[in-house]
Amino acid sequence: MTGPLSDRSNRLLRALMREPVDMTPVWLMRQAGRYLPEYRALRAQAGSFMALCQSPELACEVTLQPVRRFPLDAAILFSDILTVPDAMGLGLQFVEGEGPRFERPIRDAHDVARLTVPDPHQDLVYVLDTVGRVRRELKGACPLIGFSGSPWTLATYMVEGQGSSNFRRIKTLLFADPALLGRLLAVLVQAVIAYLNAQIEAGAQAVMIFDTWGGSLAADHFLRYSRDPMSAVVAGLTRRRDGQAVPVIVFTKGGGAWLPALADIACDALGVDWTCSLQKARAEVGGRVALQGNLDPMALYAPPDRLREEVKAVLRDFGPGVGHVFNLGHGVLPDVDPERVALCVETVHAASVRPPPSN
Amino acid sequence: MTGPLSDRSNRLLRALMREPVDMTPVWLMRQAGRYLPEYRALRAQAGSFMALCQSPELACEVTLQPVRRFPLDAAILFSDILTVPDAMGLGLQFVEGEGPRFERPIRDAHDVARLTVPDPHQDLVYVLDTVGRVRRELKGACPLIGFSGSPWTLATYMVEGQGSSNFRRIKTLLFADPALLGRLLAVLVQAVIAYLNAQIEAGAQAVMIFDTWGGSLAADHFLRYSRDPMSAVVAGLTRRRDGQAVPVIVFTKGGGAWLPALADIACDALGVDWTCSLQKARAEVGGRVALQGNLDPMALYAPPDRLREEVKAVLRDFGPGVGHVFNLGHGVLPDVDPERVALCVETVHAASVRPPPSN
Repeated sequence: MTGPLSDRSNRLLRALMREPVDMTPVWLMRQAGRYLPEYRALRAQAGSFMALCQSPELACEVTLQPVRRFPLDAAILFSDILTVPDAMGLGLQFVEGEGPRFERPIRDAHDVARLTVPDPHQDLVYVLDTVGRVRRELKGACPLIGFSGSPWTLATYMVEGQGSSNFRRIKTLLFADPALLGRLLAVLVQAVIAYLNAQIEAGAQAVMIFDTWGGSLAADHFLRYSRDPMSAVVAGLTRRRDGQAVPVIVFTKGGGAWLPALADIACDALGVDWTCSLQKARAEVGGRVALQGNLDPMALYAPPDRLREEVKAVLRDFGPGVGHVFNLGHGVLPDVDPERVALCVETVHAASVRPPPSN
Repeated sequence: MTGPLSDRSNRLLRALMREPVDMTPVWLMRQAGRYLPEYRALRAQAGSFMALCQSPELACEVTLQPVRRFPLDAAILFSDILTVPDAMGLGLQFVEGEGPRFERPIRDAHDVARLTVPDPHQDLVYVLDTVGRVRRELKGACPLIGFSGSPWTLATYMVEGQGSSNFRRIKTLLFADPALLGRLLAVLVQAVIAYLNAQIEAGAQAVMIFDTWGGSLAADHFLRYSRDPMSAVVAGLTRRRDGQAVPVIVFTKGGGAWLPALADIACDALGVDWTCSLQKARAEVGGRVALQGNLDPMALYAPPDRLREEVKAVLRDFGPGVGHVFNLGHGVLPDVDPERVALCVETVHAASVRPPPSN
């Protein structure tokens, strides 16, 4: 790494690589979103959520909004995890109040056989344009994180056709035809590799794999159908660019029991949700990976004094030493007061300042 | 224990107390329920779900239905976890297709101050009558398990007023006024103790505490607001009756990361959901408690051969030795084919037969 020991321009990347930092870096999942009035204004202007994602100009602006408002240590690309299946022809739609839905979900072997790996430079060029534009606008103030859904999470949405409370369709497939599920996951591994490498090439300085639904699986199925495909993705990623490491973060929501197995896949950092103790997580993964998390998103509704205490409790739980990135255990909720987000970010920095090295 | 080494009359109780058994006992959460045509017929006759719960005659019949149909090793009381708050005056209603809802949820300190511990012999006598009736009808064929919701889970429903996806109201209370939450939990601890002890007195031979929502909490909050109140409940329970141990099972859904902390509360067994490896769970709790679980409920939709394999995988995962009760990691779903349940129960027994002791 070049530059000072650490500041907003490299604090996140150093922490993800388990290098010393001047204070704990912080960013928040869904830091760009509906709780910000400036987001709601742009969303109204765009007309639809997908229109917002697909306009590099607007998506760039949304990405930058929280970074302008708060001293966050990273910007994260504003996009949706379902852009890849959309590019595969499934027809992504957002029904107001119902979440994402595919017009043409995967129903049988024929549907799987027809799938091809999208070329990001053709089918997802709007994402790459957003990445390039954000990097230019940021001018190095803080790094930009790119992301993708995990193969299992994408497969779940593609087979269920929408969100699910019990994952009946994908699990029926898992039990009835594991080979077919394997073929679907294999295509998605290639698609995610191509997508993330294109984001890195376009300027993403770290990437995160969101395994939103890995936590729905039995332990051995998790390893086979969620962890192993993520491992294959990580093995295919560009890990250095322009002389800098490009850290890879893997986050399985509800995956607290599987952290050692996740640390095996050679990523740089693991996301942890609020149900895990960071101290326990740290003991379990040894020094193999950095950890990112893990405030309960609901703490952003707490009174200011209590929010401060909860933030400090997370910092204390991780304890001294390298390799912590502060985050929530899940996304910022739509009606959170932006002042609470400001207080959270400020408290992370103030409560984690480390004395400069004595020599 | 008296009687033979084990048979259907005592296999469950012996396994819960970590004594040797001839084969692994099995029962299933929601084994009495909508997937059975005979249940649907009685439900139609009763008119409403609460009418079914509140009629000892009908609730007894529903409890017995699965035990007649399948060689299950236990009956579990047919009731609802929200009978206690209903008896506290909150007005439980079941809106078709929406789940439970309280007419008068807990909103402030005044509501909490008004709560009193229900006398089960007055306010919940229909439950006790059901327990007595089931015991008489069972004639010792298999044991009867009583149950209650955990204090945290009851508090969650009482404050949210209904099910919740993010637990915003109860967590706002937790952050804004933990002392008030503490008072609510303290009343519920006493209510659950009185309720379970009355079930034991009426004839329940084992009891289970369902901590359905403990998994929503941050690790340290789980210990304080879910685990500790359950610990207080367990300390207050009648643990022997008529010369027999009355085992206590504690089940925190999504609590796989906290099993050692749960084993500290001196219950006899812990329920585990399918996201935990039983082998890992067993290593973590040492020989302190039996384990109950943990097939993914979705495996009941698998083709027969695959279901058999999945059942055997659970048995193998636990491995040889005492202290396993087979169950699902959550309830049987409403549209499962009863033939699959039959196959599951049969496979557990057939695949776990142990040779009789050689002397």
